[in-house]
Amino acid sequence: MAPTKQGLKIAVIGGGSSYTPELVEGFIRHHQELPVRELWLVDIEPGLRKLNIVGNLAKRMVEQAGVPIEVHLTTDRRAAIAGADFVSTQMRVGMLDARARDESIPPKYGVIGQETTGPGGMLKALRTIPVLLDVCRDIEELAPNAWLLNFTNPAGMVTEAILKYSKVKSIGLCNAPIGLIKQVSSKYGVAADRVYAEFVGLNHLHWVSRIDVNGEDKLDEMLADTAGYSAKNVPAREWNPDFLRSLRALPSYYLKYFYMTDAMLEEQLESLNQGQNRAEVVKRVEEELFELYSDPELKEKPKQLEQRGGAYYSEAAVNLMRSLYNGTNDIQTLNVANNGILDFLPDDASIEVNCVVTKTGPLPLPLTTIPPMAKGLIHAVKTYEQLAIGAAVTGSRDLALQALAHHPLVPSVEVAIKLLDEMLEANKEYLPNFFPQ
Amino acid sequence: MAPTKQGLKIAVIGGGSSYTPELVEGFIRHHQELPVRELWLVDIEPGLRKLNIVGNLAKRMVEQAGVPIEVHLTTDRRAAIAGADFVSTQMRVGMLDARARDESIPPKYGVIGQETTGPGGMLKALRTIPVLLDVCRDIEELAPNAWLLNFTNPAGMVTEAILKYSKVKSIGLCNAPIGLIKQVSSKYGVAADRVYAEFVGLNHLHWVSRIDVNGEDKLDEMLADTAGYSAKNVPAREWNPDFLRSLRALPSYYLKYFYMTDAMLEEQLESLNQGQNRAEVVKRVEEELFELYSDPELKEKPKQLEQRGGAYYSEAAVNLMRSLYNGTNDIQTLNVANNGILDFLPDDASIEVNCVVTKTGPLPLPLTTIPPMAKGLIHAVKTYEQLAIGAAVTGSRDLALQALAHHPLVPSVEVAIKLLDEMLEANKEYLPNFFPQ
Amino acid sequence: MAPTKQGLKIAVIGGGSSYTPELVEGFIRHHQELPVRELWLVDIEPGLRKLNIVGNLAKRMVEQAGVPIEVHLTTDRRAAIAGADFVSTQMRVGMLDARARDESIPPKYGVIGQETTGPGGMLKALRTIPVLLDVCRDIEELAPNAWLLNFTNPAGMVTEAILKYSKVKSIGLCNAPIGLIKQVSSKYGVAADRVYAEFVGLNHLHWVSRIDVNGEDKLDEMLADTAGYSAKNVPAREWNPDFLRSLRALPSYYLKYFYMTDAMLEEQLESLNQGQNRAEVVKRVEEELFELYSDPELKEKPKQLEQRGGAYYSEAAVNLMRSLYNGTNDIQTLNVANNGILDFLPDDASIEVNCVVTKTGPLPLPLTTIPPMAKGLIHAVKTYEQLAIGAAVTGSRDLALQALAHHPLVPSVEVAIKLLDEMLEANKEYLPNFFPQ
Amino acid sequence: MAPTKQGLKIAVIGGGSSYTPELVEGFIRHHQELPVRELWLVDIEPGLRKLNIVGNLAKRMVEQAGVPIEVHLTTDRRAAIAGADFVSTQMRVGMLDARARDESIPPKYGVIGQETTGPGGMLKALRTIPVLLDVCRDIEELAPNAWLLNFTNPAGMVTEAILKYSKVKSIGLCNAPIGLIKQVSSKYGVAADRVYAEFVGLNHLHWVSRIDVNGEDKLDEMLADTAGYSAKNVPAREWNPDFLRSLRALPSYYLKYFYMTDAMLEEQLESLNQGQNRAEVVKRVEEELFELYSDPELKEKPKQLEQRGGAYYSEAAVNLMRSLYNGTNDIQTLNVANNGILDFLPDDASIEVNCVVTKTGPLPLPLTTIPPMAKGLIHAVKTYEQLAIGAAVTGSRDLALQALAHHPLVPSVEVAIKLLDEMLEANKEYLPNFFPQ
Repeated sequence: MAPTKQGLKIAVIGGGSSYTPELVEGFIRHHQELPVRELWLVDIEPGLRKLNIVGNLAKRMVEQAGVPIEVHLTTDRRAAIAGADFVSTQMRVGMLDARARDESIPPKYGVIGQETTGPGGMLKALRTIPVLLDVCRDIEELAPNAWLLNFTNPAGMVTEAILKYSKVKSIGLCNAPIGLIKQVSSKYGVAADRVYAEFVGLNHLHWVSRIDVNGEDKLDEMLADTAGYSAKNVPAREWNPDFLRSLRALPSYYLKYFYMTDAMLEEQLESLNQGQNRAEVVKRVEEELFELYSDPELKEKPKQLEQRGGAYYSEAAVNLMRSLYNGTNDIQTLNVANNGILDFLPDDASIEVNCVVTKTGPLPLPLTTIPPMAKGLIHAVKTYEQLAIGAAVTGSRDLALQALAHHPLVPSVEVAIKLLDEMLEANKEYLPNFFPQ
Repeated sequence: MAPTKQGLKIAVIGGGSSYTPELVEGFIRHHQELPVRELWLVDIEPGLRKLNIVGNLAKRMVEQAGVPIEVHLTTDRRAAIAGADFVSTQMRVGMLDARARDESIPPKYGVIGQETTGPGGMLKALRTIPVLLDVCRDIEELAPNAWLLNFTNPAGMVTEAILKYSKVKSIGLCNAPIGLIKQVSSKYGVAADRVYAEFVGLNHLHWVSRIDVNGEDKLDEMLADTAGYSAKNVPAREWNPDFLRSLRALPSYYLKYFYMTDAMLEEQLESLNQGQNRAEVVKRVEEELFELYSDPELKEKPKQLEQRGGAYYSEAAVNLMRSLYNGTNDIQTLNVANNGILDFLPDDASIEVNCVVTKTGPLPLPLTTIPPMAKGLIHAVKTYEQLAIGAAVTGSRDLALQALAHHPLVPSVEVAIKLLDEMLEANKEYLPNFFPQ
Repeated sequence: MAPTKQGLKIAVIGGGSSYTPELVEGFIRHHQELPVRELWLVDIEPGLRKLNIVGNLAKRMVEQAGVPIEVHLTTDRRAAIAGADFVSTQMRVGMLDARARDESIPPKYGVIGQETTGPGGMLKALRTIPVLLDVCRDIEELAPNAWLLNFTNPAGMVTEAILKYSKVKSIGLCNAPIGLIKQVSSKYGVAADRVYAEFVGLNHLHWVSRIDVNGEDKLDEMLADTAGYSAKNVPAREWNPDFLRSLRALPSYYLKYFYMTDAMLEEQLESLNQGQNRAEVVKRVEEELFELYSDPELKEKPKQLEQRGGAYYSEAAVNLMRSLYNGTNDIQTLNVANNGILDFLPDDASIEVNCVVTKTGPLPLPLTTIPPMAKGLIHAVKTYEQLAIGAAVTGSRDLALQALAHHPLVPSVEVAIKLLDEMLEANKEYLPNFFPQ
Repeated sequence: MAPTKQGLKIAVIGGGSSYTPELVEGFIRHHQELPVRELWLVDIEPGLRKLNIVGNLAKRMVEQAGVPIEVHLTTDRRAAIAGADFVSTQMRVGMLDARARDESIPPKYGVIGQETTGPGGMLKALRTIPVLLDVCRDIEELAPNAWLLNFTNPAGMVTEAILKYSKVKSIGLCNAPIGLIKQVSSKYGVAADRVYAEFVGLNHLHWVSRIDVNGEDKLDEMLADTAGYSAKNVPAREWNPDFLRSLRALPSYYLKYFYMTDAMLEEQLESLNQGQNRAEVVKRVEEELFELYSDPELKEKPKQLEQRGGAYYSEAAVNLMRSLYNGTNDIQTLNVANNGILDFLPDDASIEVNCVVTKTGPLPLPLTTIPPMAKGLIHAVKTYEQLAIGAAVTGSRDLALQALAHHPLVPSVEVAIKLLDEMLEANKEYLPNFFPQ
């Protein structure tokens, strides 16, 4: 990839996000290997206030660091995309209010309410996929050689929708894999590149079947440490040690929704009864962050940003851009087309797997160990994902019903129907495919 | 296959079953194309009374019909198997009391209690598979060219265990497919061979994705008739018509346990609260049947036998023997090795699928339509089955826990552990692999 | 398939062929199960004389037999196709002169000259595929539910081209499989349906890996009989007995071109030096046949027709139509889409394999034994076929060169280039895709 | 891999090879990253003279360089292997005389005579595979964690034999891929790690379908340079430019034997008529080298060594050991188990393909472009290889005949039989499996 003129143009769709300062910090720190010339932060009209706050912080950070990056703030998505080398997306269609609904409606029917998993994840996909495919139409027209780095959740389903319905070169990213690597590297006091962890599965549904530290197998030690592997945005239920040991793989913390469904649901119901939900908490944290960002004396990423669940998102993004730009052939865990890696899924299914990042894109590495237990659940969730992607693109209520009725967390067709009725209605304004005017 | 001397030798393991008269009737009716010379009914010591009742009825039936079939009653399994052309098995390790436990324990933990599906099915597999593999050892030694026709439930798992752990030529059989064909042929007033129904899936977990009557597609009509497709041993909940229409396939009635889990469980809990369970009902029906069978004036299959759930079992068995013996190349729905038919399952997984029955065995037919919705659930249940088969053969509690924790009907690892503890203990005397002495 | 009005309409493209009387005889004999009402024989203008001779014989045959079949003779292909239930094709683009060139040019370069195998087969494909795809366009428009039965050689490549480039329901047919069955049934004195032969491979490139007679394995006996398995249109070189025994499969007689290349080429060169080639012989036989057909007293198929190489073509066609029409689910050897049967070829490759003929089309049967030796050659020839089909459709000289250079019978790129130059030029008038005006 | 004590033990089977000084030079240069403590050069009795010459040179080189490597010379293979970290093999069973026969016998029958390709390659495989499997038995017993790096030709077949018939962790290596990288890097004046070349195929039968230099596609430029891509041990026939352009991939120079068979054979016949063959040339070069090596003043690798065909062999070996030892995750082109990379070959077929070299072994990278033309020839040669490996292990003449008769360079079964007879007889003393005593 030849950088445009003497540097790269980056477009960040959803640039008003509170994560943006982390991304800017990454561009500053790695300017040598990733010579960004133009950084376009773009957001929609209702996000303009946040965009300005975050964008002005970005400008101050760049100036303070003395790197030659031009920061542009705009609501004109097409101008931002035109000629870009990289486009990254981090958006939330319907904003935190929609998330609150994704989290609060399912528990009323005895079903997990979560923003990327279960019925909440499906509604998020229905709202988000058409918007992302619109972005892709623009990229196809205005920056056909650009790489699209997608952080927008549900990242696996969004990536698969783009693989199937556009020609854009797209990669899905999640912070969970880099988080695990950091955790292992800190536990053992080694550099991150001395840790090799093999991820098997889908976005937010992976198992780690091999963990080598300095070439030595540390899986059993990691499995014995049941408390260690957790995340800020998933409640801290502990794994049963017998179960982990006989599973022979470290499950993603999102798998608690499947393996501890009853306890996780109970916890959600308690929180909801106490008037809390995760969306509300995030809302408050965000407001505090934007207050901080507004301080004209702040000229670097504030420490408080790291307390959010999404730590390492931006590190993951900058790492990937650097590797693609320089063709470093290093290994990263990415959401890409399956192409035979999981032999029971179609080639165009998105999976989350280790890849060598070459100049012309990521090449997924074959898996050395697939936990036999994981296959059924991976396939069951992928089946739901395929149906839900079809529903998102076509607006077919039939497909949406089939998707929900076949989701492992939905106990019956009857519940699926009730949930679907209420959730579609509640998301009406963000679902033009389902409610055409 | 050359018939031994001038006729065939058949060994029926579990010959004291109440179904046996139907089988005998089949041998009588089709003696021309299937020249049975010796019929060996074999059972274990505790079943001797029933074996004698049923066996004497069989002798009276044969005599009345005037066909040259010698009926042998024995508890010497090896004598029965030696030199047999066909061995069929229909047994219930632990008898109806074990079934009653399979049905009553899971509901205490909010889980479906059923003899072939869910935790009940797993315990039945743990009890049964080692016994069947013992039978296979005898066949390998004493009748290596015999076909084993397995009716013993869970027939899919038993068939897969035999495929993996023995060299016996084995086929699994269920009465459900022939039952559907009969229902369609009666609904449309055509001969059964004018109905072509494509079965996709596993034993007790199939979808019918194509129903042609006289070459015309009748799937939509069948899907619209939601009440029609049911069975005596599965309660008569109706399917949601919107769901069926958008599923584009007729689900097995056993799929109600997955698609209507909440309602089916509620019904089970009500029945249990009223002191009923299916095992008890069957017990009473059986006692009445044996009373009938004891009547020395009875010389044919009594009409009452058809009221049991297992109608057509024997018809299926005799059909299969006739086709294997004569190489008729007709199409039957059987449980056989996958060998690529469902491309997401391993070659040695058992599946339930249409086959051409050639002289040298069934050749599975490729599927023309696989409902995309079904793939995830098929794979999830097959994953459980593979783990449970491994547990049955090795006596590994770890594998049994993984099997149960990954069964789609079990809500959490915690419930799996509790269920496993209680159910293993309750089945102790039938699980020598788990409780070696 | 509902017959049009009270009977079926059949269109025979290339109806002026000398084989047609055999087909008519088949329709007469099987009128009960295959109620043909209209038989349209269609040919091109230059074939009108032959069409009239053969067509009038057909009319006399029908009248003599007293069956209610209307015979139509026409050069209006679209009228013949409109509303047809079955379309069959048997044509030779460029007629016997083109065949003579296919056979005589390659030997000049030390390469086998044969009408379906090697460079001759490629040129035949280049001439024929575009014409067949034109026929398919008409069928798509005028008889979208019709079955196309293709006898036109190279039948495998033509079938694959139709699978890839049209929506017509098409099946490729060859007389070789039925010929083998007849030979075995006559050798053993049993009815043809007591012979089960498993065909593995491609059209004119198959191996028979299993031959059961009355359910007994007769492969070894057949392999020991090296002289027996031959054909009128392939010279009678004998197989090496050691080679056959260790191959463990009966090769198609066309495989002599690959396994005995040197000897077969020598024979061709001798014949050519003596001024003979197969095309000339066929030409003479044809002329004699048409003289016979012209006799107004002839009212049935003359015996002499059976001396041609294509015996059983029409029997194969009538069998297939009967089975499709009645849904008999019997087994026939056909050229159909691979769909995983040979796991090393793509799904849309045409293969020649046993199928169950259901009402809605043939379902290929899984193979029980694939000779490991055959895989490489099958794949090498299929690679050539894929490239040649691409060349035929696009007129790409590059693809044609790659096809020829990768054909196992072509010794070098240099020879491929010379052959291609001369053969394209010699076929100029039949290759509008290569020589657009 | 934990190095034994404070350094690594390396065993070189066939250590008396003239290539050894290159290897020693590599160990000296990279001692920092690959801390070799013991280097065991082992050879058979008849090679003792050469072993001593080369071994003493090695000792002088190590001393001169001042690195702490102990050099051991021995004919006791088991002592050399015991506890080794790496075992490399470079041997020629039957020595150059056997090679001379591999090269001279086939042309008598009009067939290419070459030491790794065609009948010569098969005989080399028959001689070599049993010896290598014996080495593996020793490794399994005495150094079960060692990596076996196999340079012994035919490297692909030897690697596959080891994959199938031993538990040793083995990798096959060839100097051709590294040679191409060097050539491209020199042509474009960039570092080797800025070249990405995608290799597709088998050992000595690969195509390069993608060549990126600094991330830019240079395939077309390389294809246009038909003279450039050659090798010392393959005569310098030029590629046809039209053919290369439409092939869209750079063929290995060994592919000239397949694509220019007639011209290559002619050249061989001319050379043989003039009393030359490649084996003779190599013999002379070797003798000169050993004379040089004997000079007690020589204390480094002589320049003349680079004139042999096998340049870069040792560089490839040292690179691979360094990457395995340090887990560098860099990309190298290796012969490994297919495992789905070429979807038409079995999992246990050896292929030559780019791999990421992790601490626990190479992970093959998925291919981005497989030239469709190559598939048939790859499969045809792999079919031959599979049969020949079977023959080598069992001593089955039947399998050897099938292998030869199905080799694309052998024109007929008849020639295969004659060739086999003469070549087996000529190699009698090295084929104990075929000529047991």
